[in-house]
Amino acid sequence: MDNKKVPDIVITRLPRYYRYLGELLDQDITRISSGELSRRMNVSSSQVRQDFNHFGGFGQQGYGYNVEYLQTEIGKILGLDRGNSAIIIGAGNLGRALACHGGFAKRGFKLVAIFDNNEAVLGTKINGIEVQSVDALEEFLKNRKVDIAILAVPKASVQGVADTAAKCGIKGFLNFSYGELKLPEGTEVENVHISDPLMTLSYKIKKGRDE
Amino acid sequence: MDNKKVPDIVITRLPRYYRYLGELLDQDITRISSGELSRRMNVSSSQVRQDFNHFGGFGQQGYGYNVEYLQTEIGKILGLDRGNSAIIIGAGNLGRALACHGGFAKRGFKLVAIFDNNEAVLGTKINGIEVQSVDALEEFLKNRKVDIAILAVPKASVQGVADTAAKCGIKGFLNFSYGELKLPEGTEVENVHISDPLMTLSYKIKKGRDE
Repeated sequence: MDNKKVPDIVITRLPRYYRYLGELLDQDITRISSGELSRRMNVSSSQVRQDFNHFGGFGQQGYGYNVEYLQTEIGKILGLDRGNSAIIIGAGNLGRALACHGGFAKRGFKLVAIFDNNEAVLGTKINGIEVQSVDALEEFLKNRKVDIAILAVPKASVQGVADTAAKCGIKGFLNFSYGELKLPEGTEVENVHISDPLMTLSYKIKKGRDE
Repeated sequence: MDNKKVPDIVITRLPRYYRYLGELLDQDITRISSGELSRRMNVSSSQVRQDFNHFGGFGQQGYGYNVEYLQTEIGKILGLDRGNSAIIIGAGNLGRALACHGGFAKRGFKLVAIFDNNEAVLGTKINGIEVQSVDALEEFLKNRKVDIAILAVPKASVQGVADTAAKCGIKGFLNFSYGELKLPEGTEVENVHISDPLMTLSYKIKKGRDE
């Protein structure tokens, strides 16, 4: 299977398929047609088929897809099956919310440490994990392979902590702080902009009022 | 200007343009070519032009775009210029983080109230706003027009509070709770799935390792 040519836009749709299939399993739905899946997900069935064809199609269209098999396969493509270890840098409200996020563990992400520079929270526990000083970050990463750093620090600090984490071998960054990160070749950054969907919503309700 | 036929995918890109243009203004960049804008945003310049052509093109391509004008116009399309009032339901870690989010006010969203059902937080203030009981939600909305409800409550409670808010006239919902909401015609929901970009990141770092 050659994933190298899969367009980015297809990749960004895979998590949504993965989630939906999980919801189907929660409802004890074990088999689904591409038509029904596309209807529930509000995308065209040809898009579903085209997306899946990038990965060999996942078979048995006449009988519909085996939901569990399909979710497992998409999980493998996403690299969820081998698990990812993650640290959170920033133990403010957002960092705490992320540390308590049930969906991460469910998708194979293992939170191994939390860092902050606020004396008041050092040594306290969030979801069973002790908050360590950011000063201990480098030493921690020397002794442990970590895949992903989740950045929930103010904009002014984010480049500095990301530099340290990248220098110590972290390849993936989920950035909740505004501003673009400059990181070395071979690292990957996903920026999360919480106000984007709020702006989209503003457009939609404005359009509803104008019509 | 007829916005009705603008494809959804174009709309979902507008917040990103809006943000980028704001960053350019912060750097005192007042004029930019579509080529330069597309390079910085990592999209093709033909996509930038095609997207903008849905709204009349925003003019003066030979000299590049006037950044402030372009941002203002995109802001108007998004309905940011007239402002949106918002409430947050759920004052846990995520609700608190959202209440303190500087980017919302900057984009014309005015947080007018916060609701929770946890006795321990009722009456406390977050970012200057007192947390009220969810029981007071209906009465509050009877007396005040609110555009958007930001839902940061557990999955089990989300449909109930959303029903109340919709019944009282709220048209826009930003849903951070997992699970699909069923709401009446004429309401708009944006679901935020924080683990989606984490899964995309997992794919990218896996691909980096495999190559």
